[in-house]
Amino acid sequence: MNSATLTINYLRVQSANMIDKANSGHPGVCLGAAPVFYSLYKNMKVDAKDPQYFNRDRLCVSAGHASALLYATLNLFNYDIDMSDLKMFKRKDSITTGHPSIKTVGIDTSTGPLGQGIANAVGMAIAEAFLSKKFNRDNYRIFDHYTYAFCGDGDLMEGVGLEAISLAGNLKLNKLIVLYDSNEVTLEANLNVSNCENVKKKFMAQNWNVITVEKNTHKAISSAIIKAQKSINKPTIIIVKSIIGYGSPNAGSHVVHGKPLGAEGIKYLKEKLNYTYPDFVVPESVKSHIEKFVNISKHKIDDEKLVLDSYSRAYPEEYKELQEWLQNKPIRNNPLDLDYNREISSRQALNEIMAQVRVANLIGGTADVAPSTLAYVKGNRDFCPDDHSGSYIHYGVREHAMGAIQNGIILHGGLRSYSSTFLSFSNYMYPSIRMSTLMDIPSIYIFSHDSIAVGVDGSTHQPVEQIGQLRLYPNLNVIRPGNIMETLASYYTALNSQNPTAIITSRQNLQPYKCTLQDALKGGYVLEDGEDITIIATGSEVNIALQVKDKLKGKKINAKVVSMPCIEIFEKQPKSYKDKVLNGKIYVIEASNDNIWYRYNIVKHYGVNDYGFTGDQKELYEHFNITVDKIVKDIVNTIK
Amino acid sequence: MNSATLTINYLRVQSANMIDKANSGHPGVCLGAAPVFYSLYKNMKVDAKDPQYFNRDRLCVSAGHASALLYATLNLFNYDIDMSDLKMFKRKDSITTGHPSIKTVGIDTSTGPLGQGIANAVGMAIAEAFLSKKFNRDNYRIFDHYTYAFCGDGDLMEGVGLEAISLAGNLKLNKLIVLYDSNEVTLEANLNVSNCENVKKKFMAQNWNVITVEKNTHKAISSAIIKAQKSINKPTIIIVKSIIGYGSPNAGSHVVHGKPLGAEGIKYLKEKLNYTYPDFVVPESVKSHIEKFVNISKHKIDDEKLVLDSYSRAYPEEYKELQEWLQNKPIRNNPLDLDYNREISSRQALNEIMAQVRVANLIGGTADVAPSTLAYVKGNRDFCPDDHSGSYIHYGVREHAMGAIQNGIILHGGLRSYSSTFLSFSNYMYPSIRMSTLMDIPSIYIFSHDSIAVGVDGSTHQPVEQIGQLRLYPNLNVIRPGNIMETLASYYTALNSQNPTAIITSRQNLQPYKCTLQDALKGGYVLEDGEDITIIATGSEVNIALQVKDKLKGKKINAKVVSMPCIEIFEKQPKSYKDKVLNGKIYVIEASNDNIWYRYNIVKHYGVNDYGFTGDQKELYEHFNITVDKIVKDIVNTIK
Repeated sequence: MNSATLTINYLRVQSANMIDKANSGHPGVCLGAAPVFYSLYKNMKVDAKDPQYFNRDRLCVSAGHASALLYATLNLFNYDIDMSDLKMFKRKDSITTGHPSIKTVGIDTSTGPLGQGIANAVGMAIAEAFLSKKFNRDNYRIFDHYTYAFCGDGDLMEGVGLEAISLAGNLKLNKLIVLYDSNEVTLEANLNVSNCENVKKKFMAQNWNVITVEKNTHKAISSAIIKAQKSINKPTIIIVKSIIGYGSPNAGSHVVHGKPLGAEGIKYLKEKLNYTYPDFVVPESVKSHIEKFVNISKHKIDDEKLVLDSYSRAYPEEYKELQEWLQNKPIRNNPLDLDYNREISSRQALNEIMAQVRVANLIGGTADVAPSTLAYVKGNRDFCPDDHSGSYIHYGVREHAMGAIQNGIILHGGLRSYSSTFLSFSNYMYPSIRMSTLMDIPSIYIFSHDSIAVGVDGSTHQPVEQIGQLRLYPNLNVIRPGNIMETLASYYTALNSQNPTAIITSRQNLQPYKCTLQDALKGGYVLEDGEDITIIATGSEVNIALQVKDKLKGKKINAKVVSMPCIEIFEKQPKSYKDKVLNGKIYVIEASNDNIWYRYNIVKHYGVNDYGFTGDQKELYEHFNITVDKIVKDIVNTIK
Repeated sequence: MNSATLTINYLRVQSANMIDKANSGHPGVCLGAAPVFYSLYKNMKVDAKDPQYFNRDRLCVSAGHASALLYATLNLFNYDIDMSDLKMFKRKDSITTGHPSIKTVGIDTSTGPLGQGIANAVGMAIAEAFLSKKFNRDNYRIFDHYTYAFCGDGDLMEGVGLEAISLAGNLKLNKLIVLYDSNEVTLEANLNVSNCENVKKKFMAQNWNVITVEKNTHKAISSAIIKAQKSINKPTIIIVKSIIGYGSPNAGSHVVHGKPLGAEGIKYLKEKLNYTYPDFVVPESVKSHIEKFVNISKHKIDDEKLVLDSYSRAYPEEYKELQEWLQNKPIRNNPLDLDYNREISSRQALNEIMAQVRVANLIGGTADVAPSTLAYVKGNRDFCPDDHSGSYIHYGVREHAMGAIQNGIILHGGLRSYSSTFLSFSNYMYPSIRMSTLMDIPSIYIFSHDSIAVGVDGSTHQPVEQIGQLRLYPNLNVIRPGNIMETLASYYTALNSQNPTAIITSRQNLQPYKCTLQDALKGGYVLEDGEDITIIATGSEVNIALQVKDKLKGKKINAKVVSMPCIEIFEKQPKSYKDKVLNGKIYVIEASNDNIWYRYNIVKHYGVNDYGFTGDQKELYEHFNITVDKIVKDIVNTIK
């Protein structure tokens, strides 16, 4: 057996052993795709001892259930994952978690929910294209790497993957290379019961190169990868025909997808592969075989670092900016020179703010709704198929992929990123929002058309449950600003946070009210004081609260009005501050159906507990009893 | 101008006028696609005066922003939509809502959020195929109709549409016909900035017929439709090359997508079209032209009704069953003959129940996870590409389309339907869950792997926020059963409800506890009485509550344990009942982070307020303090 074959068989047996030891995992893909992982890491430009090197090749393992194989490969290629870690596969406190996580060294994106890894890779390829346009100079290829994705049949059925594939072809992301483990078997059956596409033709119709590897050998895969690297204006998919659970008793059957082989199965596997080495030990010849590739790759990067050094002298300003971008230099929270005393929608306010707070390393886009959500930076150019230097991405009507692509852009490093659609359609993006909150990365979501106030477009376009649903994600700041200053604060928060942020803006104009930037940045603050009751409001409803306060005065009730653009940030304030802001009998005005308010032991939430209907804004607020007169009357009644 | 052309121009002017009067709407698609709508209704088998006739052709207007054109067409083709309704477009209490709604006569599915209408149509085509296999006999084609979808560029970018298209090709749904308004312009720009696919080749690669109509004329479209109707084993897409905003000043530009034309624009349009009739009046020659088609279609259906009459005599049993299916005959809530006193997971319990409660008109499937969620009826055959008589649908890894397809199956009539995936991935389906709750139709969702108890697969696979998010949907029953009887109750509820239901089942085994079916059907009930405190628990955590009660006894605290499998149903019980069940100091044990419990003025919710991690179930519950000892200790402390 030659060293390459032995190495691949080692990866197979090792993965199977890990899964068996954990009594959980997916041997099917690990046994089938070992040649792919070997070939990938053999050809990738990475330095295991500098795993965050900014110009490394990226890999998104979209089929995250291949985790055992991934960990075994990372261990082999010198990453800080020891054999003891491999033995702890799927155990508490191990770095070899059930599915791959960015918290583990060498892993570029967290995966598990299918399809998203492909979109993450599209995001990384966009980032690389944009950054190389920005920083590369003659002879200085500062950004110059490939982005790989590994996927299975499932990833190519998920809508998020399909959306991302379509966009990648359009954007001519030639340095994106997808390796597709085509074993034609899924969890529950043979693929043909659920899918009979001609994948090759489908990708070609979407402006992709297609390379088919009929024989699942490292030589064929490596030569396909090298061919793919030369693509000029198309992304490439390499279709690797494989056998699920190769070498195991149930090879070729869906039974082996997610079931540990057991002692008997492993014995069978080893015999089939002629593998005679002890378990959980890397054969010496495998070690030395791999060392060669590790060194070649490391030297490549060492050379690049010398080039960077020379760049820092030849282009000192660019170099300085590069460092700032890579570190995401904080934006200063300065109040802008704006007329704050204006009736204006918060989407329009945000648009003006985005134009003034110039963030050089910001790239983003909308799901074909820029003229509506106004989430764009005036004057910025498009990121086009033939010119990757612009920073506005036309995502098309592909909300889900937009979210996952944005996660990929941010995971790449060097860039900030926002995405945008209507709040009502934010649910199309939830699975990728979940991943951003799980990874705890600073994705920025801008959702306009914040409530039933959308009106005439009808119930499909009126968000009701979304604000509450978003607030249920751990680690997500949900900010609903009510005036220009709060909108500014929301933008600063989003730009300077380490965690993701959703900014929810209004379609309709809002009346101005005065506040300081400092207050707005606290998430919740006393807008007008009063000692009898406390009225909390957010965003579009702050004005109603202020009017309610005025009317209550006439009834000898002195209400405090608290503006609460962001509960999550407010909750992080010192207890003494929070106690000062929130006390007494509390009422809430927010055109949502969020139960979170009941945590504050409130008397009542004036909100929306059902879907809306076609009508104008006033009619809808009237129907749901969110009017000044009705609320005043009700407060007076409940106080008696 | 001939009558057909005049009719099409009338539809254009009428749509534009409606939009202008409402000062809101989408003239772009209405002006471009008028020939398609004319041709569709000319060729469709429908009876405007019997709009729910079960064997009518169906139409899903996936590009719901074409609503003005749809309403104008329905009015023209004799549906109960008057000119006065058209004048009320987008007004409160009108039937001409912002986007199409099933509450309006003649509309087969509610649309607006893009892509879903295509998937709804796939569901209707599945229903027709299944029902025709079931009921048709020689010479009796009881079910025999086409399902049409109308879509635009946006629908073909949305993942949900792409998933559904892929599945439809695989399933050889030859009576599905999609009309694609290919105007190559989207809301924000020309299509080529976001999409450059070769749609024809892409569809052909997915086993679709493709017919391209280069000239947007009713003759070409009609002949394409007639050709498509003859397809033997493939669905058909008709690509109609059109001009957005045809005839208007901004024809061909994205500007006309969503902006009313204004008086000047309408004047320009009329001149361009040579249209000289008064506004909001159907020209007499148009009326008489349409009458012909209306009558032909009506006669076709009248003939079919005679055939059905004859069928009722030739096949009286089949006819009886047909009536039962069309009326969704209620399932009797009988306790089954099962051993209820067993340790068993609720997913397994549901599997056994589904096998025993035979529901003849139930069709459903999973997103490639039947062996895991166990949501299948043992012994039932597959709905296969070449045999549409089976009732298990291999949806593939296409959660989002699965949800929207299921909505289509139910909207078709005659069938019940369930779909299933892991609770953690339910968020992939949210946009279609939203539509089922908005339409208030009895879609059944079965989500297994209910909590952090999933354990070793890690945080990506552990639901945390999903239960709370699902409970925020208006009209959705969210049921989390804890034993076999509650699981049975959840299934009966789902089968007999008019609204949608989500059943959440456990992966892990649960200890048995005794309850009656009657109690379980109430959503919440006293499982064990006690006067000192009340502990609410759901699903997997009911057992913990019972153990906590036992331990508290030793500390002289007599706790009441309330099992609350479904808050929504509990809330519908009489106030006196609810007050009896819930009173005093209330504690909640549920491995979720749902704020809804705070509505009950609780002392504490023992839940999960962050993402989980890789580990075994015990370690996770320990970490989140959901253990008997910790809870007992905490209750004792808070009571002091």
